Amino acid sequence: MSRSVKLAVIAGDGIGPEVVTEALKVLEAATQTEPVTFDLTHFSLGATRFLETGDVLTDDDLAAIIEHDAILLGAVGGVPGDPRLKNANIERGLLLKLRFSLDHYVNLRPSVLYPGVPSPLAEPGEVDFVVVREGTEGPYVGNGGAIRQGSPHEVANEVSVNTAYGVERVVRYAFDVAQNRARKRLTLVHKTNVLVFSGSLWQRIVTEVAAEYPDVAVDYLHVDAATIFLVTNPSRFDVIVTDNLFGDILTDLAAAISGGIGLAASGNINPDRRFPSMFEPVHGSAPDIAGRQLADPTAAILSVALLLDHLGLSDASARVSAAVTADISARTTSGTGAAEPRSTSAVGDAIVTRLTD
Amino acid sequence: MSRSVKLAVIAGDGIGPEVVTEALKVLEAATQTEPVTFDLTHFSLGATRFLETGDVLTDDDLAAIIEHDAILLGAVGGVPGDPRLKNANIERGLLLKLRFSLDHYVNLRPSVLYPGVPSPLAEPGEVDFVVVREGTEGPYVGNGGAIRQGSPHEVANEVSVNTAYGVERVVRYAFDVAQNRARKRLTLVHKTNVLVFSGSLWQRIVTEVAAEYPDVAVDYLHVDAATIFLVTNPSRFDVIVTDNLFGDILTDLAAAISGGIGLAASGNINPDRRFPSMFEPVHGSAPDIAGRQLADPTAAILSVALLLDHLGLSDASARVSAAVTADISARTTSGTGAAEPRSTSAVGDAIVTRLTD
Ligand SMILES: CC(C)[C@H](C(=O)O)[C@@H](O)C(=O)O
Ligand SMILES: CC(C)[C@H](C(=O)O)[C@@H](O)C(=O)O
Repeated sequence: MSRSVKLAVIAGDGIGPEVVTEALKVLEAATQTEPVTFDLTHFSLGATRFLETGDVLTDDDLAAIIEHDAILLGAVGGVPGDPRLKNANIERGLLLKLRFSLDHYVNLRPSVLYPGVPSPLAEPGEVDFVVVREGTEGPYVGNGGAIRQGSPHEVANEVSVNTAYGVERVVRYAFDVAQNRARKRLTLVHKTNVLVFSGSLWQRIVTEVAAEYPDVAVDYLHVDAATIFLVTNPSRFDVIVTDNLFGDILTDLAAAISGGIGLAASGNINPDRRFPSMFEPVHGSAPDIAGRQLADPTAAILSVALLLDHLGLSDASARVSAAVTADISARTTSGTGAAEPRSTSAVGDAIVTRLTD
Repeated sequence: MSRSVKLAVIAGDGIGPEVVTEALKVLEAATQTEPVTFDLTHFSLGATRFLETGDVLTDDDLAAIIEHDAILLGAVGGVPGDPRLKNANIERGLLLKLRFSLDHYVNLRPSVLYPGVPSPLAEPGEVDFVVVREGTEGPYVGNGGAIRQGSPHEVANEVSVNTAYGVERVVRYAFDVAQNRARKRLTLVHKTNVLVFSGSLWQRIVTEVAAEYPDVAVDYLHVDAATIFLVTNPSRFDVIVTDNLFGDILTDLAAAISGGIGLAASGNINPDRRFPSMFEPVHGSAPDIAGRQLADPTAAILSVALLLDHLGLSDASARVSAAVTADISARTTSGTGAAEPRSTSAVGDAIVTRLTD
């Protein structure tokens, strides 16, 4: 008997539709032999939709999305500086709205430097770590305000909100991830010497939960020091657990050292499964190269691997990862040294071929 | 007629005293021929002092320091995890207390990759930029609190406070710096898509002040994207202006790509000259290597160059920079390739010799 998975697809703006097309091809190919079918609903959301209708994400959109088992998102956001988008904050109104409404308290971002992939680092060593970024608290809560806006006496505040409940659940998830990895190492990254209240909370919870995971070795780094180690000794990291904003910053840096944002996948996960989780490449909509088959769909395809894993289809997930690894190593070793640039769909096709041959 | 400068010296903890000794030797040598004398007062402050007396920074200490024209600081902070320091936050109680009390609203942090210095980047290109970090606002204000501490219902908040007054004065300073540099480029780094209130304020002030500096080219990067460019294309940066927390993170990364924290100097500046400015290496007290003449005093010595410049002694400042540049290039080209490790005082002596020969 075949299980049916309702998948909401938000292709979005810019290169989003192109990379999602390839991701869906791969999803299909990887699950051909599995007892599962995907029932897709395409949602037109993002800057394009806003420019046409004035809506970013309506209550009806959200209600419809919640009916799904999972979400695949390409990228959202219009051309930077477009005056028509001035009053539409697509990031807060769509992307963060989904993450918060669907209680995506784990933002999972693996960083792997695949063999042969160039890194900006002279001696990257082995890069294979996962950032478990908190997704529903911290400075991202939108709890800010300003008075006397536009005047020389303006005061603008932003409140970072952190709860024991919110920190504990993500920390526990991170320990589970660490427990299941070979090196079993967890690094808390924060800025406890300056942000003493939120920092103490994170530190306390990590210490408390650590007692339940005696096999996991725990250490701590200030966020500023963590950026140094990411470029001088990335191999020291196995699992990083950190708050929403620090996670945002560290994962872009992590992507940069491990082959670029074109390879970085992410899962916005609600581990309770009360709401659909959402899988998306870390990259943005890159409107400058959109529609020209120039985008690398690998990050979107690796996000499909995370999606499959979340759905319990771990064999299919492993097949996608293996096909991507093989594709990447073929790119970098194919004869002349410099890889030929391939179109977005050529990359998708090559990975599909590996899955179906 | 010779001018007398009252200099408060806070050697501090760990390697602080060692690097300050060398910095003072260099200060003396560089100003021998200048119509200036330095009148030094040594302040015993830091973890060592706290362990002896229980005081971090008394009102009397602060009042005495304020009587000086400038401050040279080595490094403060005890052995991480020392239980006796648990309730003494030396960072907030001393370092940040000085920066805030003395209205150090500009935290100036140049990054230069000197010829021959190894960088973790495979192709660093030319690295020569300055970060102008705000020093008295943002998430550093200490405006946080927690309820139900220690319980599963704890809530811990941190408030980032940003004012038009505070942002404008540092932005104006950054434009002045950019105006006086060859490339005249200024990049605002923030996270305007998420921190919309503080982000709008920063964006508005930069746009307003930019109108007065038509020669300066301005652009904007989100903080996450800025970390990517710092490792993939650092040459794109000339002057970065950013908030207190983003500046903290970016300057450690900047130090890492430009030869390490052993070379990174900083000035905590009160441009109004109502209070003494404070010059310090970016590195910490490194208690693990303290007292063994293993620390590189170069960052402290380059902080002396910033101090001299602040005092209007720009010739002496330039001589210190030139002597450091020459010393660094001698380290990296001296015969065998691998530089011999020199003691802390040997580095200071070598730079002094270049200044006095
Ligand atoms: C687009 C933006 C709101 C988002 C974030 O800050 O989380 C992005 O940078 C990311 O990392 O997914
Ligand atoms: C020690 C700490 C409070 C300080 C900061 O965060 O500003 C340090 O990291 C720095 O950059 O000078």
